[in-house]
This record gives sequence, C-alpha cells and structure tokens, in this order.
Amino acid sequence: MTHKIAVVGTAFEAHHREKITGTAGAFGCAVDFYPSHMDAASHLQDTTIVFGPSDAHSPKSVAAAPKLQWFASFYAGVDPLLAPGVLPENVLLTNGSGAYGVTIAEHLVMATLMLLRRNPEYHQLVDQKGWRNDLKIRSIYGSTFVICGTGDIGSKYAQRLRPFCPAKVIGVNRTGRSAEGFDEIVTIENLDSVLPQADMLVLTLPGTPLTNNLITRERLALMQENAFLINIGRGNCLDQEALVEALNTGKLAGAALDVFRQEPIPQEDPIWEAKNLIITPHCSGQMTLAYTRDTLVDMFCENLTRFFTDQPLLHAIDRALAY
Amino acid sequence: MTHKIAVVGTAFEAHHREKITGTAGAFGCAVDFYPSHMDAASHLQDTTIVFGPSDAHSPKSVAAAPKLQWFASFYAGVDPLLAPGVLPENVLLTNGSGAYGVTIAEHLVMATLMLLRRNPEYHQLVDQKGWRNDLKIRSIYGSTFVICGTGDIGSKYAQRLRPFCPAKVIGVNRTGRSAEGFDEIVTIENLDSVLPQADMLVLTLPGTPLTNNLITRERLALMQENAFLINIGRGNCLDQEALVEALNTGKLAGAALDVFRQEPIPQEDPIWEAKNLIITPHCSGQMTLAYTRDTLVDMFCENLTRFFTDQPLLHAIDRALAY
Repeated sequence: MTHKIAVVGTAFEAHHREKITGTAGAFGCAVDFYPSHMDAASHLQDTTIVFGPSDAHSPKSVAAAPKLQWFASFYAGVDPLLAPGVLPENVLLTNGSGAYGVTIAEHLVMATLMLLRRNPEYHQLVDQKGWRNDLKIRSIYGSTFVICGTGDIGSKYAQRLRPFCPAKVIGVNRTGRSAEGFDEIVTIENLDSVLPQADMLVLTLPGTPLTNNLITRERLALMQENAFLINIGRGNCLDQEALVEALNTGKLAGAALDVFRQEPIPQEDPIWEAKNLIITPHCSGQMTLAYTRDTLVDMFCENLTRFFTDQPLLHAIDRALAY
Repeated sequence: MTHKIAVVGTAFEAHHREKITGTAGAFGCAVDFYPSHMDAASHLQDTTIVFGPSDAHSPKSVAAAPKLQWFASFYAGVDPLLAPGVLPENVLLTNGSGAYGVTIAEHLVMATLMLLRRNPEYHQLVDQKGWRNDLKIRSIYGSTFVICGTGDIGSKYAQRLRPFCPAKVIGVNRTGRSAEGFDEIVTIENLDSVLPQADMLVLTLPGTPLTNNLITRERLALMQENAFLINIGRGNCLDQEALVEALNTGKLAGAALDVFRQEPIPQEDPIWEAKNLIITPHCSGQMTLAYTRDTLVDMFCENLTRFFTDQPLLHAIDRALAY
C-alpha cells in the first residue's frame, strides 16, 4: 500500500521539508505539512504516519486519523499520547529521544554553574547597580552529582562535567545498566542511599508512573543542608511545595526548575517568589536549537526508510515503561 | 639572615595560616597576619616578604617595608605594583597565576551558555511571570571560539569546551606557542584574521601596555553581526563605549563583562542599560572558591621553600612583559 504522511508543526525549515519529502518520495509517498494539529485534523482521513509534537493537542491527530499506523513524536516526552484511550495499541509510537541531549545538557551545565556561583544573588545586586564580589562560591570541582536518568540527556550532561573534575558523578536508573560519563550507577531502589552524598541532585526523568512523585518531602529531607536541585524532566516527579519550603527555609541552597506541576505556572503560585530558585519556562529542550531540528529530521528519515523496508523502528516507545 | 613575613588579607582560614606558619617556622621565620595593607603599614619596618593582594592599596605595603625582598601577590594581575615608582627593581615579584583557572573557567562556561541560550531575555520574561519558550538559541556545538590569552585561564576554559564539541577553538597569544585545549594558535599580530570567524570572542588578558586598547571600535567592526564577546581579564583592553554601541544597535548579539574601565561602574554609566549585556561585578575570580585559596597557599609555601633554599621562584613576573 502507499502511505500518506502528515508533518505537523512550524519549527522545520525548507531544507528539512525537502529532506522529508525526498525520503518519502523515494518510496512513492506524499507528505503534507500542517502548522498545528488543529490545522491538520480535517485532512487526516487517509493519513497513515504522523510526525509531530506529542503535546496536549496530539490526541486530536490520533482521533482524526483512523488509518494511523505510526505516530512519530518529535518530542522526547510522550505522556499525552499514553493517556488511556488515546493511541490504539496497534499504532507504533516513536519519540525524539537523542535529539535533545546536546541542548538540554548545555542548559544543565549553565544552571549548575549559575547555582554554584550564586548567580541569582549577583543578578539581583547588579539589577540595583550594586557592587560586591566577596560571596563565597562553589565549584563543579570536588562536588558530588547525583543524576536521576542516564539516557541521552543525563549521559551527555555527565560527559560535559568531565573536564571540570575531579567530581563524583553518580547515575541513577531503573536497571543499574552502565552509561557513558558516570563514575557509578545505582538502581532507583537505592536512591535513598546516594541522596545524602549529593551536592547537586539532577532530575532528567520522563513522566511515567514510575517517576511520579519520586522526590518526596521525605527524600528532600535526606539531602545535605547546602545541596542544590535541578529538574529538566517532568514536573510530576517532584513535590514542588516541599521544594519551595526547603528553599525558603534555607534547607536547600538553591534550585533550578525548567518543568513544573502546572505549566504555564499560575500567576499566584508561591514558586515565583521562592528563594534562590532559577525558573526557566520549559525552554531547556524545545526545537530552538538547529542541531535538534536537524537531528529530528535525520532520525525521522532514517525511521521512514526502516518503516518502508520492514525493519524495526529506532526510538520506539515501550508502552509498559512509558518511555 | 632571618626573614619576617607579613600575610595581608582576610580570605585565609585557620588551616591556611597554620600551613604558612609551619612552612616559615621550619626555616626559623616568623609570620604576622594583618587584615589589610592599611593595618599592616605601621608594622612592616623589618618585613622582608609580603604575601598579599596586589590591589590599589598594595603600594602602601611596599612603601612601608624598606627591607622588602619579595612581594608575593595572591592576585594574578599585578598592574598596581608595576606602576612607575612603586616596586623597586630589586624586589622580587610573583603572582597567583595558576590558582584562578578553575574558578574563572567555570565563570566563562556559565557566561558562554547564558549568552548562547538568551538567558538575559528569559530572565526578564520570568521576572514578569511571563511564559514562552520558542526563542531560537545557539550552542557551543558547531561554534567558533577565539580566545585571547592562552594561559591557565584561557587553556582551562578551552579544555572545558571539549566535550561540547565539535567546536573550533582558536587561541591568540603573544608568541604563537601551543597550549592545551586549542585547535589552533595564532599570534596577536594575526588577531584581525581570526576575528571575523568568531561566534564568541573571549578576552582573558592581563592589564599590560601590550593589551591596552587591544579591542578597538575597528576590531569590533570586523566581527560577525551575530557574534558575542566576553571579557574577564582587565577593562583596559576593550573600547567599552564602542561595545555598548554595538550591543544597542544589534551589531553584536550579546556580551558578558566582568571587568570594566572603571570599577565599581559609575551609577550614571550607560553600560548598566546596554542591550543583551550580562554584567558581573569583577567576581569571576577573587578568592571566593576554596580551591583558589588552597592553591594560593600551596603555591606560596612551595615558593617560600624555594626562596629559603635559593631556587628560582615560580610564577615570577617578567617586568618587561608586565605579567
């Protein structure tokens, strides 16, 4: 059979569209481009493949495409597609894992150094045209990192910490399998034994049932008084209220959050005013970096070829694990 | 002869003082500690060695110590001591070069990523409780860096960029000698040939006659429209007025300055309001990091032993080069 492909979103440039069209064309398939799931919805009657975002609007594409065989998400997180009743069991699902490590690892190194070097305080000082330079700071050098999630993002971050070392970089994952850049890996069951060592706890986890409420108030209490926390994965894994309390009482030295329980953050949320908290508006990943967009298109075209030649798809989601 | 040593400053902790006292004591020498050059001034009649800051007050120590043989600056920059008439030719001068690379390289990586990832704009957005995450950003990955100064600081920065690569890292120094972390080194005479390649121009230069006014308005004009500039060396090397103009007109995409023509920056200086400029109050180095203080004391004690056993001192300043 011939396939009909819908590419949804505005991030891709002309050369990306040409590459996708060319790859599909070689297998005799047509490609339609739509700016959003809403725009696409009324044109998906015969569509078999969707390449698009997996955000809250993606169920629309699924519902509007009765012949859908494969949903290729260009985001890494696919939680909205895995909500009950959205994606039929027989539809293949792949994600954009592998395209975001470069940009998110750079965000992580930036946030790490901003926290260690007391950037929030220096920023406030400079905003008021003040001048002092004697705040005691800390360093990656000699620090211990506990990184939850050792996939593309966690591993690229760990690798980028290397030349700043000596530092101890501990990875935490589900199975204890090794990953590049880490000195030591422990399984998630042993998280509590490494939390007290962390100068910096870094969460790079997908939003899954297993990661839900992982960092509770009790786990935050296991951390050192002067430790830091960074979250770039999903807001679901962290007790946000307990974190704000730990920051405001000085129990933690600082935090940098790019993801939240509710996004956008409600105007009245007390998190806006939390002490030594660096807030970024879920911008650590996104498709704002050319490398990310190029990689996503390369990955999709590679998978298109695999799909048409009956090879297993890369970056396929295991529905039982939800990532 | 026995020597009398004065250690000036408040940054050192008890274990540092013990190490210095112990090292000097092994050679039969006494050590006095003073919080500032002002406090020390009336006690330096017999002092032969001063270990202290080389800031604007340091000429006081020199003037008050007629028997001075060696001034060990714990700062890397020694420009105030090299002003005409301050330090007699026969007094040895060493600096703290080697102790600041770790901390300043971390500042540099932080500033680099903050610029590439449009942190000033995101910060302003979050200050107003705003939410958007679609600003196009850039990456170390694939960028070209031109780093003026390939000493401890420039080299440690270049090394820390490595795992973010591919990136092209070009060093600029006086002699063309090689240094760790660089893909290519050019001499300062060839600066104009590499400036147009730079996505990021980074200045890690000492304040010397050779570096004075190095980055002129004309040289800024050689840079790409969307390039960035970082300066952590000395304010003397940059036409600050031309930089502010380039930022405000969008000729440059952004800058991060830690050093300025005049410090503290005057309240009325237009630089406070320059577009996409990250200002830090000369805090990239300082002795705020434990590693820096430990290293400075280790280096001084090593040099004390060398001094007492007639070996050449490490980190000696070449007065002709002023660094």
